[in-house]
Amino acid sequence: MPQLHYAIGVDLGGTTIKTGIVSSDGKIIAQSKFPTLGEQGPKAVIGQIRKSIDEVLAHTKGKTLRGIGIGSPGIVDEEGGIVKDPPNFAGWHNVALGNAVTKIFGFGAKVENDANVAAIAEAKFGAGKRHPNFLFVIWGTGVGGGIILNGNIYRGPFGGAGEIGHVCIDYNGLQCNCGALGCVEAYVGQRYLSQRTVERLKHHPRSAILKLVGGDVSKVEPKYISQAALKGDKLAREIFTEAGTLLGVALGSVLNTVDVRVIIIGGGISAAGDFVFTAIKKSVQLHVMKPMRKDITVIPAKLGNSAGILGAAGLVL
Amino acid sequence: MPQLHYAIGVDLGGTTIKTGIVSSDGKIIAQSKFPTLGEQGPKAVIGQIRKSIDEVLAHTKGKTLRGIGIGSPGIVDEEGGIVKDPPNFAGWHNVALGNAVTKIFGFGAKVENDANVAAIAEAKFGAGKRHPNFLFVIWGTGVGGGIILNGNIYRGPFGGAGEIGHVCIDYNGLQCNCGALGCVEAYVGQRYLSQRTVERLKHHPRSAILKLVGGDVSKVEPKYISQAALKGDKLAREIFTEAGTLLGVALGSVLNTVDVRVIIIGGGISAAGDFVFTAIKKSVQLHVMKPMRKDITVIPAKLGNSAGILGAAGLVL
Repeated sequence: MPQLHYAIGVDLGGTTIKTGIVSSDGKIIAQSKFPTLGEQGPKAVIGQIRKSIDEVLAHTKGKTLRGIGIGSPGIVDEEGGIVKDPPNFAGWHNVALGNAVTKIFGFGAKVENDANVAAIAEAKFGAGKRHPNFLFVIWGTGVGGGIILNGNIYRGPFGGAGEIGHVCIDYNGLQCNCGALGCVEAYVGQRYLSQRTVERLKHHPRSAILKLVGGDVSKVEPKYISQAALKGDKLAREIFTEAGTLLGVALGSVLNTVDVRVIIIGGGISAAGDFVFTAIKKSVQLHVMKPMRKDITVIPAKLGNSAGILGAAGLVL
Repeated sequence: MPQLHYAIGVDLGGTTIKTGIVSSDGKIIAQSKFPTLGEQGPKAVIGQIRKSIDEVLAHTKGKTLRGIGIGSPGIVDEEGGIVKDPPNFAGWHNVALGNAVTKIFGFGAKVENDANVAAIAEAKFGAGKRHPNFLFVIWGTGVGGGIILNGNIYRGPFGGAGEIGHVCIDYNGLQCNCGALGCVEAYVGQRYLSQRTVERLKHHPRSAILKLVGGDVSKVEPKYISQAALKGDKLAREIFTEAGTLLGVALGSVLNTVDVRVIIIGGGISAAGDFVFTAIKKSVQLHVMKPMRKDITVIPAKLGNSAGILGAAGLVL
């Protein structure tokens, strides 16, 4: 058995920082959790990262430590680990997060975009271990992506690759938060999905979704639609099948561009059930070029909420 | 001055094979042209390639010859230069064109997809010389593409990358030849553009387009629409501006996926005029993520019809 080595993985989220010590075989041996304090500016956030690392650092004694990896929202400039305009972080335009953390702890800190980090986690430790090339999709509040080529993340020349939530599926379509019309995120992201469900419930007073929210439509969210779908509720299944089909249109465009043929889907909404994966696959197959169709594979991610820590550590392991 | 070396470039088209001797500084010093005979099967086509090379081979005497490059329609498997299902080639499923040509001439022949070859030509000798990363678009009968990263073609794991004509712009849209709905090619490819123009001409009896085709709408094609547009014809400009806008939607999706920021556009239709480039750029900027917008550059290709020979030679130069 080869000697194990270790790394610190930091999952910097909008509300919580989760940090863990990860072994080279993909196990988290210690973990900490702190509030991000994103509304207090970069200095406060870096302070919280420091605390979260300090708390787990004791567990690395006598172990070979490879360094610190950080997964962050926003576009990340590799050189210096500069994080640009992460949403929900006040006063944060361009911050050299990598350099700041390197300075504090005295060993190299590498920073990468959070969707890319989750893709790396699946490639190294999860559903992508057997697939050298795949598209990772994170389907939750928004739709994010990471492209793995030959086992490595494809960042693009400027670190912004894989923004698949803003692939357009209707040039004359719904308004997206980003300013454009018809981005797939505006169709299948959490808020839109919930909103569309509320509208449809008017005509489906017997749907199990209504029972799950105790009749209060303001509480409708994908979690309940998913529970109803798993119980066989017709409306809930329709909504997810439609969403999967629309997501598949965008994924088809992505696959025609980069020619990978395996799609790994994580994020909250992907838990809705097998039928969503079937809908996505069918739709992707309709939209990719003929020679690709028979090879299309759509599978769920394996690592769930641990992907952030594992992938961040994977940056330096 | 560094010593020049040379390569043979073969541009295998649906109707014509064009072959040239190309110097390492991008000059075609001899050229031949033969009918493809695609309807007679692979053996006949390979025979024509042989003739076309034989005709120019005399011009390589005393010169350092690096090998033979071939640009071909269809998806190309790099290993053995296998060309898969090129459209308009009878009896051609999987043909090991690279190996066949290597056997005939006794030195290495490399094969690549024709859109990729044109992208390589622009990268080495044309509008892409100063741009290490760009998306090349060929806009004519169909819409094809090639992605240049760090000066090299991105083929994807299976050689099928850059099929940007089949990026979807409307999931509920027009039927494309490929079987899917809403591919951008079904909106801006030559046939659709002509068809749409014919319909609009009913309401624009004074359009310069009608004069250019002598009143015979069956003759309408992008060449005439372009001539009319350059003369200032309102309808012609409208049609190209719309087409550029729709093409830009698809290109925006591609850029969000791979994060290149320079687009080089070649092919017959791209000659329509500056206003098409303006329309494409505007539309791309609307659809890409905010941090990319200011960097978007859309420029015309430089090499025109020579791109096929130059890029094919570029495969081995």
